[in-house]
Amino acid sequence: MVNYLAYIPPSLSPTQFNLVYNALSLCIAAMIGAALFFFNAKSLVGDKYKPAILISGVVVSIAAYHYFRIFNSWDAAYTLKEGVYLTTGEVFNDAYRYADWILTVPLLLTEAVAVLALSKELAKPLLIKLVLASVLMIATGYPGEISDNVITRIVWGTISTIPFAYILYLLWIQLGKSLENQPEQVKTLITQMRLLLLLSWGVYPIAYLLPELGIFGSPAATVGIQIGYTIADILAKPIFGLLVYSIAKVKTQVDATEAGVGLPISSEN
Amino acid sequence: MVNYLAYIPPSLSPTQFNLVYNALSLCIAAMIGAALFFFNAKSLVGDKYKPAILISGVVVSIAAYHYFRIFNSWDAAYTLKEGVYLTTGEVFNDAYRYADWILTVPLLLTEAVAVLALSKELAKPLLIKLVLASVLMIATGYPGEISDNVITRIVWGTISTIPFAYILYLLWIQLGKSLENQPEQVKTLITQMRLLLLLSWGVYPIAYLLPELGIFGSPAATVGIQIGYTIADILAKPIFGLLVYSIAKVKTQVDATEAGVGLPISSEN
Repeated sequence: MVNYLAYIPPSLSPTQFNLVYNALSLCIAAMIGAALFFFNAKSLVGDKYKPAILISGVVVSIAAYHYFRIFNSWDAAYTLKEGVYLTTGEVFNDAYRYADWILTVPLLLTEAVAVLALSKELAKPLLIKLVLASVLMIATGYPGEISDNVITRIVWGTISTIPFAYILYLLWIQLGKSLENQPEQVKTLITQMRLLLLLSWGVYPIAYLLPELGIFGSPAATVGIQIGYTIADILAKPIFGLLVYSIAKVKTQVDATEAGVGLPISSEN
Repeated sequence: MVNYLAYIPPSLSPTQFNLVYNALSLCIAAMIGAALFFFNAKSLVGDKYKPAILISGVVVSIAAYHYFRIFNSWDAAYTLKEGVYLTTGEVFNDAYRYADWILTVPLLLTEAVAVLALSKELAKPLLIKLVLASVLMIATGYPGEISDNVITRIVWGTISTIPFAYILYLLWIQLGKSLENQPEQVKTLITQMRLLLLLSWGVYPIAYLLPELGIFGSPAATVGIQIGYTIADILAKPIFGLLVYSIAKVKTQVDATEAGVGLPISSEN
C-alpha cells in the first residue's frame, strides 16, 4: 500500500536529487529572509495595516520551520552510491506540507482580508467563512491524500474541492467588490493579488491529481511535485506577502494624504 | 561527468583546508554581525531610507544561512588522515552560492536603488529592469555551471553575460545621473558604491571562467575559488551595506537641514 504523504521515493540522478535539494534549501532561505523583512517592515506601514504584515511574518516563519523538516527528510531518504542517489530505506515525509497548510492557509486568508482594512461588519463574517472553509478543505483532502485507493482519493478530493472553490469564489467576489472603493494604484495591486492567489493555489489540486493520472512515483514526477510545491509556496507566501506589503504601503500614503497631514512614511519602496 | 556545483574536491594540505574553513567561518560571523547592525541601525536614518537598510539586513541574513550550509558541506567533505585532508566521498555543494545569488542579487539591486530615494516614476521602471535582468543572468548561468561540456559552458556563459553587462550599464548610467543632484559628500559615497559594485561583481565571471582555463579541480584552484567568492561576498554584502548606510545617514542630515527642522528620526525601530 502506498501512502502518498510518507513514502520511499525512487532512485534519482545527481542532477534530479540536487535540483530538489537546492530548491528546498533556497526555499528555507527565502522564508527566513521574508520573515526578517516582514517583522521589521511592520513599522513602515500605518497602524491599520500592521496586523497584515505581522501575519505575513508568522506565515513565512512557520513555512521556514516546515521546509527545514522537509529538507532534512529529503536528505535522509537518499545516499550517493556510484554516481546515483539511491534510497536509504528512510521514508520521505511529505506530510509536513499538510501540517504547514493547516496553519498557514487560514493565516494567509486572514492576511488578505486584513490588508483590505474592511469595516468590522464586513470583515468578521467574511473571515469566519474563509477560515472554516479552509480548515474543511485541508481536513477533507487529507484522507484522500493518504489513501492509494483511487475511489477513496476521488471521493475525498471532490469533497475537498467544494470548500476550495467556495474560498476562491468568496475572495474573487469580495476582492472584486473592494476594488470599487480603492485608489487607482491599489486596484492594480489587488488585481495582482487575485491572480497570484489563483496561480499559486492552483498548483495544489494539480499535485493531488498526479497519482490518479498514473504518474506518481517516477523520478520525473517526484522531482516535478517537489519543485512545483516549492515554487507554489514561494509565490503563495513571501511573494504574496510582498504584494500585501505594497498594498499596505500605498494605502498608508493615501490615508495620510486624505487626512491632510503630509506623508508620515514617505519611503520609495 | 563533473558537476562544478556539487563535486568531490581534491585532497588538501592542512594549511589549504584550514584557510577555507576559517574564511567560511569568518564570513558567517561577518554576516551575522552585519545583520544585527543593519536591523538595529534602521532606526538611525530618515524614514525614506529605512527600506534600504532593512533590505541590507535581509541580504546578509540570507548569506549567513548559506555560509552555514557551505561551511558544513566543506567540513563534511574532508577528513584528516596522517597530516593530509582526504575527501570523505561526500559531495561539496557549491550550489548554495547559486541559491544565495538568486535571492540576494535582486535584493542588492533594490537596496542600491532604494537608498537613492528617486521619484517613483524613475525608481519603478529602473527596478523592474534590474530585477528581471538579474534573474535572467543567474538563471542562464546555471545550466552552464552544472555542465562539464566546454561548448555548453561558453554558450550559457555568454548568454548570461548580456544581462550582467546590462545591469552594470543601467547602474553606471543611473548612479551617474543621480550624482548630479546629490550633495558633495553623497557624491563621493555613490562613486565608491559604483566602484565596489564593479569590483565585487567582477569576481563571479572570473570564477565561472576557471574550468575553461583548465585550472578547475587542483588544490590551488579549489582554495582560490572559495577564498575569492568569500571575499567578493563580504565586499558585495556587508561592506556594500555599510556604504548604503553611510549614504542614508548623510542624506538624512541633508534632508533635515533643508527642511530646517533638525533630524526627523522616528523612534520606531
